[in-house]
Amino acid sequence: MTTDADPARRYTVVGAGAVGLLYGARLAADGHDVHWIVRSTADELRRRGVEVASPDGDVSLAAGQVSASNLGDPAPPADVVVVATKTTGDDAVFPHLAALCGPQTTIALFQNGIGGEDAARRAVPHARAVVAGLCFVCAQRTGTGRAEHLDYGAVTLAPLGGDTAPADEIAADLSHAGVETTVLADLGVARWRKLVWNIPFNGLCTVLDTRTDVLLADPASRALVADLMDEVIAGSVACGTPVDASFRDEMLKITDAMTPYAPSMKLDLESGRDLEVEAIYRRPLRLAAEHGTRLPRIEALATMLEHLDRHGAPRAGR
Amino acid sequence: MTTDADPARRYTVVGAGAVGLLYGARLAADGHDVHWIVRSTADELRRRGVEVASPDGDVSLAAGQVSASNLGDPAPPADVVVVATKTTGDDAVFPHLAALCGPQTTIALFQNGIGGEDAARRAVPHARAVVAGLCFVCAQRTGTGRAEHLDYGAVTLAPLGGDTAPADEIAADLSHAGVETTVLADLGVARWRKLVWNIPFNGLCTVLDTRTDVLLADPASRALVADLMDEVIAGSVACGTPVDASFRDEMLKITDAMTPYAPSMKLDLESGRDLEVEAIYRRPLRLAAEHGTRLPRIEALATMLEHLDRHGAPRAGR
Repeated sequence: MTTDADPARRYTVVGAGAVGLLYGARLAADGHDVHWIVRSTADELRRRGVEVASPDGDVSLAAGQVSASNLGDPAPPADVVVVATKTTGDDAVFPHLAALCGPQTTIALFQNGIGGEDAARRAVPHARAVVAGLCFVCAQRTGTGRAEHLDYGAVTLAPLGGDTAPADEIAADLSHAGVETTVLADLGVARWRKLVWNIPFNGLCTVLDTRTDVLLADPASRALVADLMDEVIAGSVACGTPVDASFRDEMLKITDAMTPYAPSMKLDLESGRDLEVEAIYRRPLRLAAEHGTRLPRIEALATMLEHLDRHGAPRAGR
Repeated sequence: MTTDADPARRYTVVGAGAVGLLYGARLAADGHDVHWIVRSTADELRRRGVEVASPDGDVSLAAGQVSASNLGDPAPPADVVVVATKTTGDDAVFPHLAALCGPQTTIALFQNGIGGEDAARRAVPHARAVVAGLCFVCAQRTGTGRAEHLDYGAVTLAPLGGDTAPADEIAADLSHAGVETTVLADLGVARWRKLVWNIPFNGLCTVLDTRTDVLLADPASRALVADLMDEVIAGSVACGTPVDASFRDEMLKITDAMTPYAPSMKLDLESGRDLEVEAIYRRPLRLAAEHGTRLPRIEALATMLEHLDRHGAPRAGR
């Protein structure tokens, strides 16, 4: 088992949104071969290079330094394939993962929601390992090859199955590249922990057209955020992957200290892109229901998001 | 006790929105003296007259036929004062009720939400009676003195206190004027029954910028409507004023048959007017909580509406 950072480890990053650009650029700047796979803009990405503005230090990769190809085109072999696309693209992306992976390749899903690791494992049974990557980060894509990192940025890794070695290796590389990284042995706990933040803030910011700081400043909406977090934690307990009850106040405190932020789901709605309701809301709700627990506020919020997903943003001239 | 319609009964209608115009015009057309009280547009109302378009037959009162005054100005005596303003105006309207009422005057609150009758009784202890008027009607104001009646229109009356005679008299007048009218002895049950409709549809149509038919056509949002209705019924049971569980399906069925409709709360938000969150949501929630019952989906919806009430309509260029 190697847990030291290994500059020789080759990364393929699927997706060049804020997450794919930020972590890919950090790894590339730290000496790793990084290859990006995008839907259709590989030429443009190579031509423009990568620039990430960050409070932790900007990262730039000049035009000639960026390796990229379009999804479905040949790509170099990789030790780690980081999937940094929205879960709404999984049906398009996952069928291509097998061709990107050898028996020594680890797939790391830097995505929100739950259920992705099982689907990735089914899509690529021959891969060495599948790992969850939970990015607690405020960041936004600002153009092809461009992203703005606003706040936070820690990554929690958790393996599908018991072997933490593949996660430890990626953690060592990320840490060496300047990213705060933690490995959690329990994938379920790790995924539910991330939901404690995503479920209230993604949903409420999107439905109400608002930001984290505005929600938390008002006692009534702050109480709703806390109640939604409690429901997520109740769901995690019902499913046998319990998040500690104190995590709610920890998340509230961290968000109080956060740069005023609107999760990208809000922009997805406004731009007519699909919302990640299935992975972030419906799968957790179904899993909790299978364990005999209904989460009524989350149900209501999920249904509202689905409605907007189908009918468009409110009062946006639809 | 007189339950026959009495053309001599004089009505004062406070408010010339859709409800005040529709029922006031029907009573006037049936021979009653009807006097409207408005915030500030009495001159314009008298000058323009009243015109209500209705599938049950249009009603017109020519310019010279309309009696109206501004709130706070002298008004003729009345046997019945119908309050047809939004509950958000209660603080402005209720202090004027005492001057409009003698000991033989019945106050009828044609308003949504709960708690209004107790407040009206406190404001006018010398009135003969206070009666709730629940209007199950789709209608909209289209200008000063103008309203469009779209669908339904039945009124349920229920007395504060045990004496149904005052309610029976108004019911007789309304019925004679062509309005389907029912008297319920239990005010609490009557108010909660109305909430079974208002709570899901007012809130969801406002937050999601949609209509009743769109909500009911999709299985997920239809289920949310039904769950919200079940919570209202659970609240009514907890408070000792139980609405029958079958009322949910009755309301769904009636709304399925309804002209596609958006409650006026949606337009209130879009026009920057205050939303009736206190009367329709917060008071029922507090009452249920006092009886040991939380209604989580309604809490969530109420909090979202309050957020929009304070911060403005989503994506409306705020």
